[in-house]
Amino acid sequence: MPRIFATYRIRSDAASIKARADAIAVEQSVEMPVAAIVDAGVKADIVGRVESITDRKDGTFDVVIGLATATTGLEAGQLLNMLFGNTSIHDDVVLHDAEFPATVVAAFGGPRQGMDELRRRVGAKARAMTCSSLKPQGLGPDALAAIAGRLAKGGLDYIKDDHGLADQAYSPFADRVRACARAIAEARTAGGVETQYVPSLSGDLDRLRRQVDQARAAGVDTVLVAPMIVGLASFHALVRANPDMAFMAHPAMAGAGKIAPAFLLGTVFRLLGASATIFPNHGGRFGYSPETCRAIATTSLRADGLRTTVPVPAGGMTVERVPEMLDFYGRDVMLLIGGGLLAAGDGLVEATRAFTRQVAAYAR
Amino acid sequence: MPRIFATYRIRSDAASIKARADAIAVEQSVEMPVAAIVDAGVKADIVGRVESITDRKDGTFDVVIGLATATTGLEAGQLLNMLFGNTSIHDDVVLHDAEFPATVVAAFGGPRQGMDELRRRVGAKARAMTCSSLKPQGLGPDALAAIAGRLAKGGLDYIKDDHGLADQAYSPFADRVRACARAIAEARTAGGVETQYVPSLSGDLDRLRRQVDQARAAGVDTVLVAPMIVGLASFHALVRANPDMAFMAHPAMAGAGKIAPAFLLGTVFRLLGASATIFPNHGGRFGYSPETCRAIATTSLRADGLRTTVPVPAGGMTVERVPEMLDFYGRDVMLLIGGGLLAAGDGLVEATRAFTRQVAAYAR
Repeated sequence: MPRIFATYRIRSDAASIKARADAIAVEQSVEMPVAAIVDAGVKADIVGRVESITDRKDGTFDVVIGLATATTGLEAGQLLNMLFGNTSIHDDVVLHDAEFPATVVAAFGGPRQGMDELRRRVGAKARAMTCSSLKPQGLGPDALAAIAGRLAKGGLDYIKDDHGLADQAYSPFADRVRACARAIAEARTAGGVETQYVPSLSGDLDRLRRQVDQARAAGVDTVLVAPMIVGLASFHALVRANPDMAFMAHPAMAGAGKIAPAFLLGTVFRLLGASATIFPNHGGRFGYSPETCRAIATTSLRADGLRTTVPVPAGGMTVERVPEMLDFYGRDVMLLIGGGLLAAGDGLVEATRAFTRQVAAYAR
Repeated sequence: MPRIFATYRIRSDAASIKARADAIAVEQSVEMPVAAIVDAGVKADIVGRVESITDRKDGTFDVVIGLATATTGLEAGQLLNMLFGNTSIHDDVVLHDAEFPATVVAAFGGPRQGMDELRRRVGAKARAMTCSSLKPQGLGPDALAAIAGRLAKGGLDYIKDDHGLADQAYSPFADRVRACARAIAEARTAGGVETQYVPSLSGDLDRLRRQVDQARAAGVDTVLVAPMIVGLASFHALVRANPDMAFMAHPAMAGAGKIAPAFLLGTVFRLLGASATIFPNHGGRFGYSPETCRAIATTSLRADGLRTTVPVPAGGMTVERVPEMLDFYGRDVMLLIGGGLLAAGDGLVEATRAFTRQVAAYAR
């Protein structure tokens, strides 16, 4: 079976890199002294293999290691475990990228609903899509629904729950979803908008399933999940069981730097089925560079046989930045402005309208 | 309701720290401009509150933020989300620690089986306990069972699966558990040892449950889980549903440095119910300092009303280091030597016996 080729970016000097590369190849496969392995099959097929070492001339090296696909059992959590489980504990190394063989790609399958379907659901033929977040947490279902209604009047495509909205006593998931879905449906009925609601799921797989059912019952077909919080296995179980649902991925607990954002938020989340992937845009509250953001968008949209994942730059964005963001990302994007709209207070509908009109009017 | 007091260790200069602390308090609670919040209750009870800022005089500051307990919904994944979800993406900050109020401690409950019970199960009254790992991955159930039998003959207390053993085609979980449990039971019957088998669980909650049932059917009552891979919510769901099982936690994907190891591997894993917590010992393959290891042991054993969690230092340990490790940790510890025993090849039983005898003979 073809191997997975994982690239580790390692801080090292030239004298030590060969030994360090060998150590990672062992750590991420058999995790024991190779000399003590007697089974010839294990030695040939299972032990990780250093494929190449490239000096990046900046104190780091890119080491490509061939990992046996069979060790992953084609299960999402175990895939991450074999890519980076123990090595994540070392502070000299970042998981930079990986190439997956066709077996892996076919087993996980990528988004069941891709960019085209997310566009179709909101009638966004060729333009960029728009999104905002329901906040603040602490409000009850009715107060959040009132905000959702006003955001919808402003003509957004998608309104997602803040990823902090879960299943709290002051705003139980079932009540919130019912109230917000209704408020947004009313805005659609009133005319002029095709806004869709995207509630945030949380908890263990039982709870996640119950929440998907409740969302479905409220007429919702797109949901938000933070894969690094619910666990990749739970995320993929939900995707498999609900092929009609679109899943928007949230980057919470994605860490800073230990796994390259383009690989985790782009490649991995897409492989497991994210229809859209939210990430911190450059120049916002978070420290991603323009290059990192470009790389996330590129991996999300790569023509490799899987459906494409919509890149969703966010994190302290403002309406003023819309033209620049569209220049940067083009139209295969969903722009997410949360607090930047809510800051308008009583002028929320107008601020939202200014955002959505600007996106609609933009042409390169 | 009393707040959770989370400590963030932040790289900053004195001029910027106040603003940075305020920003984190908002990011980890309402995630929107506070000025735009109209609800008085949300402002008073939900918005994060900077409680203190301490200059550590080394370019870092400890910032304590009071987070509303209600935002966690008393659910494990959401607890992590509110502690560090978005802030994990910033590279100037580490989640250093948190104090949980009694509501949180009672809701999660800590280990259902603690140190005393792990001792009782193997007849280790007052001495330190011993452990090794079944490897290498790639072997089939019978070959692994043969190694398990030899390790058991050496008198170990616990033999765990390598955390890379999952549910692979070459070694399906159900077959492996049956074969290894039998081999170890035979060693017990032959006399002189009370070794227990600890299989490694993986996958989504459905699979995890099936594996627990298969383990139970094979007479196993202790299992290994990597909480950061299966997800904290799945881990806690398993603990709740199987109060008779002891759970050994593995640190895979625990990252380096983003969350202080003593907090994650000690406090959090214990809060959610880990009976034992494996961590890289200082001076081994990983970069933890003696201070970090001491802190993990201390938080695992803290007298705070919860059952204690057994600290399990590991990661490139050798029999030669046993006296030094026992001097360092005392006897409330389980020593785990994996590859260091397997390196003995044909001398595996004797090497294992040397390890277990040394631990039994040690007295401070």
